[in-house]
Amino acid sequence: MAKGLPKRGNDYSAWYNELVKKADLAENSAVRGCMVIKPYGYAIWEKMQQTLDKMFKDTGHSNAYFPLLIPKSYLSKEADHVDGFAKECAVVTHYRLKNAEDGSGVVVDPDAKLDEELIIRPTSETVIWSTYKNWIQSYRDLPLKVNQWANVMRWEMRTRLFLRTSEFLWQEGHTAHSTKGEAIEETKQMLDVYADFAENFMAVPVVKGVKTANERFAGAVDTFCIEAMMQDGKALQAGTSHFLGQNFAKAFDVKFSDKDNKLEHVWGTSWGVSTRLMGALIMAHSDDEGLVLPPKLAPIQVVIVPIYKSQEQLDAISEKAKEIQKALQALNISVKFDDRDLRPGFKFADWELKGVPVRLAMGQRDLENGTVEIARRDTKEKNTYQLDGVIESIQKLLDDVQENIFNKAFDYREAHITPVDTFDEFKDVLENKGGFIAAHWDGTSETEDKIKDLTKATIRCIPLNNKQEEGACILTGNPSTQRVLFAKAY
Amino acid sequence: MAKGLPKRGNDYSAWYNELVKKADLAENSAVRGCMVIKPYGYAIWEKMQQTLDKMFKDTGHSNAYFPLLIPKSYLSKEADHVDGFAKECAVVTHYRLKNAEDGSGVVVDPDAKLDEELIIRPTSETVIWSTYKNWIQSYRDLPLKVNQWANVMRWEMRTRLFLRTSEFLWQEGHTAHSTKGEAIEETKQMLDVYADFAENFMAVPVVKGVKTANERFAGAVDTFCIEAMMQDGKALQAGTSHFLGQNFAKAFDVKFSDKDNKLEHVWGTSWGVSTRLMGALIMAHSDDEGLVLPPKLAPIQVVIVPIYKSQEQLDAISEKAKEIQKALQALNISVKFDDRDLRPGFKFADWELKGVPVRLAMGQRDLENGTVEIARRDTKEKNTYQLDGVIESIQKLLDDVQENIFNKAFDYREAHITPVDTFDEFKDVLENKGGFIAAHWDGTSETEDKIKDLTKATIRCIPLNNKQEEGACILTGNPSTQRVLFAKAY
Repeated sequence: MAKGLPKRGNDYSAWYNELVKKADLAENSAVRGCMVIKPYGYAIWEKMQQTLDKMFKDTGHSNAYFPLLIPKSYLSKEADHVDGFAKECAVVTHYRLKNAEDGSGVVVDPDAKLDEELIIRPTSETVIWSTYKNWIQSYRDLPLKVNQWANVMRWEMRTRLFLRTSEFLWQEGHTAHSTKGEAIEETKQMLDVYADFAENFMAVPVVKGVKTANERFAGAVDTFCIEAMMQDGKALQAGTSHFLGQNFAKAFDVKFSDKDNKLEHVWGTSWGVSTRLMGALIMAHSDDEGLVLPPKLAPIQVVIVPIYKSQEQLDAISEKAKEIQKALQALNISVKFDDRDLRPGFKFADWELKGVPVRLAMGQRDLENGTVEIARRDTKEKNTYQLDGVIESIQKLLDDVQENIFNKAFDYREAHITPVDTFDEFKDVLENKGGFIAAHWDGTSETEDKIKDLTKATIRCIPLNNKQEEGACILTGNPSTQRVLFAKAY
Repeated sequence: MAKGLPKRGNDYSAWYNELVKKADLAENSAVRGCMVIKPYGYAIWEKMQQTLDKMFKDTGHSNAYFPLLIPKSYLSKEADHVDGFAKECAVVTHYRLKNAEDGSGVVVDPDAKLDEELIIRPTSETVIWSTYKNWIQSYRDLPLKVNQWANVMRWEMRTRLFLRTSEFLWQEGHTAHSTKGEAIEETKQMLDVYADFAENFMAVPVVKGVKTANERFAGAVDTFCIEAMMQDGKALQAGTSHFLGQNFAKAFDVKFSDKDNKLEHVWGTSWGVSTRLMGALIMAHSDDEGLVLPPKLAPIQVVIVPIYKSQEQLDAISEKAKEIQKALQALNISVKFDDRDLRPGFKFADWELKGVPVRLAMGQRDLENGTVEIARRDTKEKNTYQLDGVIESIQKLLDDVQENIFNKAFDYREAHITPVDTFDEFKDVLENKGGFIAAHWDGTSETEDKIKDLTKATIRCIPLNNKQEEGACILTGNPSTQRVLFAKAY
């Protein structure tokens, strides 16, 4: 166990907080709720960005950049949107500081008050749709498929590193289409992209579904989501894709002339994932020794630790190790040769804490025998390999680790989806087992609110392609046609 | 000439403004001084980012992310720094909006006033050094070499797309070292990286130099810079690298224990380039027909335009064109096949406006003869090539264009560095020829200010490895040991 890391089983929450700090991923800053993402954490985020960015481009999107600041009045143009975001906006009111007359430092210059206050974007629909108005005239300008990588700000009262911070990094896609059908198709396509990324890169299985009205994005007609399950049985919303209908097009008067020269409002979508994914990645796989990273997103995929008693031994081992490093790097595998002047045991613990998927150790005996000891981070299994053919073995091991941690998370989730038919059962499972609870619900926001008040559980989603069956709402007994997924959530 | 694009010779400023908009690079937003970077412009910026990011990593830097918002009090901790930045800060004073009682929209909620105002980072030295205090204890924690890609905000009164905007995108490197010598070496290394990037990727020749006290970064001991010359003879500062001495270490109490366990303040550097480089790129090479992009940063390096009179012809040409496209793409050359239903002349003008370095045109006759017409954007030279061997010809052409536009800019600059020995001559050259003026200066800020007041010219830099020679200041006649470069600047 990493020094000072609490055990997951004892205090999951403390374990997470400490792990984020001890593994050098992120820390709190002096500004309440705003984090510093440290180099090792940022390197993981960069891998996520690169992978997603390619997926967005492969599906025909281009990147662009829109202003950080949004005129206050823009927010009000879409009625639901302002209700959803006004309560957590950072507001810029002045554009200059000046020296305090008492010499105590700088103060806001009252002569530099803005005519209209500006808010720091909590999301960019308003500023983007106000721009799209100028970009879209005709059906020939559609579809317009733009993505932005940016920082956004939502003033949160209770924050946690990566999971809920006042400032966070994200991408937000904003597309405009000539037909409703095409916009819905885009919404679902991006949901599929997110699910593909979560499962095949993060190794986190997700349920694709649609949100209920209560949990819908402020301004959307429908919000689709991917929901993941953490190791404590709580749910984490990992990405959302919104079908906006014509709501923002109407709010910002964005029309196009179709092939018959008829003016119509444009159909929109928006979709985003954020540094919250870092939280999901950490919580889905890691253990009491530290991070467990999927090889596809690990900044360091393989570490080589020399075990030596003399400079001479170190030199001989280094030579062999660097051959292996070079061969792996030629295959685009990132390798660290750790020749720091520290005890091997310390290094092992350090790289376990950092979640490096595969660790090689080489000592004098290995040199003599033409072998190397290889340990995998996920199962902690250790084996001695012949150097002959070791490159292929490592490649296979990386694939195995990627697959195994997905399967482990998948099995955990499958074991924690529990169908229940009564409210007592519901409360019992929620309290003693956790996970997703598949239960009938009468379809009203009122019932959903009541269940939330009574249990803190929310409806995470109505799964796509959900099985239709007759049933009775667990709370009201009213008729229902399908089970929805409830859970306590991050 | 692109429709509606003013001629450079008539109105350079209008030409620039219109070119930025018509080539779909950027536009103004509703928030004063904040721009929208459009997809085509952003694609160029992305290429710049990728190239620079690799150069930073190759020189041992890691990326990280620090908060957007900075407590007002942080700014005051370094005396020069606050003087330099307080006058142009966007200030966040509240964290919530609420519905206006008269139903007119949302207003600032007076109950949500921050205890301490926060400013949007104009640069991140303060927040980063306040963090480094916790990261640095011992010499083993040094050097610390971190870079950040971020948006920053400086409230500018007069703005121009890319060149001077209130919000801009940039990277800022912030490093900490145990010795003065190492910090100075880092400062100069990053200046070299910037010069390498400007010359070998942007194809913009630059002078490396050091700023005078007047033009120094607020909080630095020395500011090094690369200075470029635009086609109107004005200078543009394209990047800066600052040796911070121990100024920020002292302001934020960042000390390390050296090998003898003695506590010392850390030595610092910071360095940055921004979306301003986009302005430099545009102004250095483009012409009355539109952008001229260096192949190494062009989002589309080659465009293929089919010339056809029937669907049958188009199909036959498409087949050939796609073979060429595929072969070029295999060499990592980005190729657009433009089969839009538009006149070839319109397409030619469009791709000239967008600055695509190499254009292929293929018609029926080419098909019959096994040829293709190739035009290069920089010289507008057109030639017919045999398809056999055309891939190598295109590769060579891209290299030629890259080299030629650098040489053209280099020759222009060399022809516009004028040594003068009297103030009358100085004014005459400044007025009638422009460019850099190499003149003797007595070394005082007072003289520099006077020359600026009289002529609007500033000292762009004291070139590195400057020739030492005896002379007399052009304004005061006082003795001087070297010529410095004056110019009017963006």
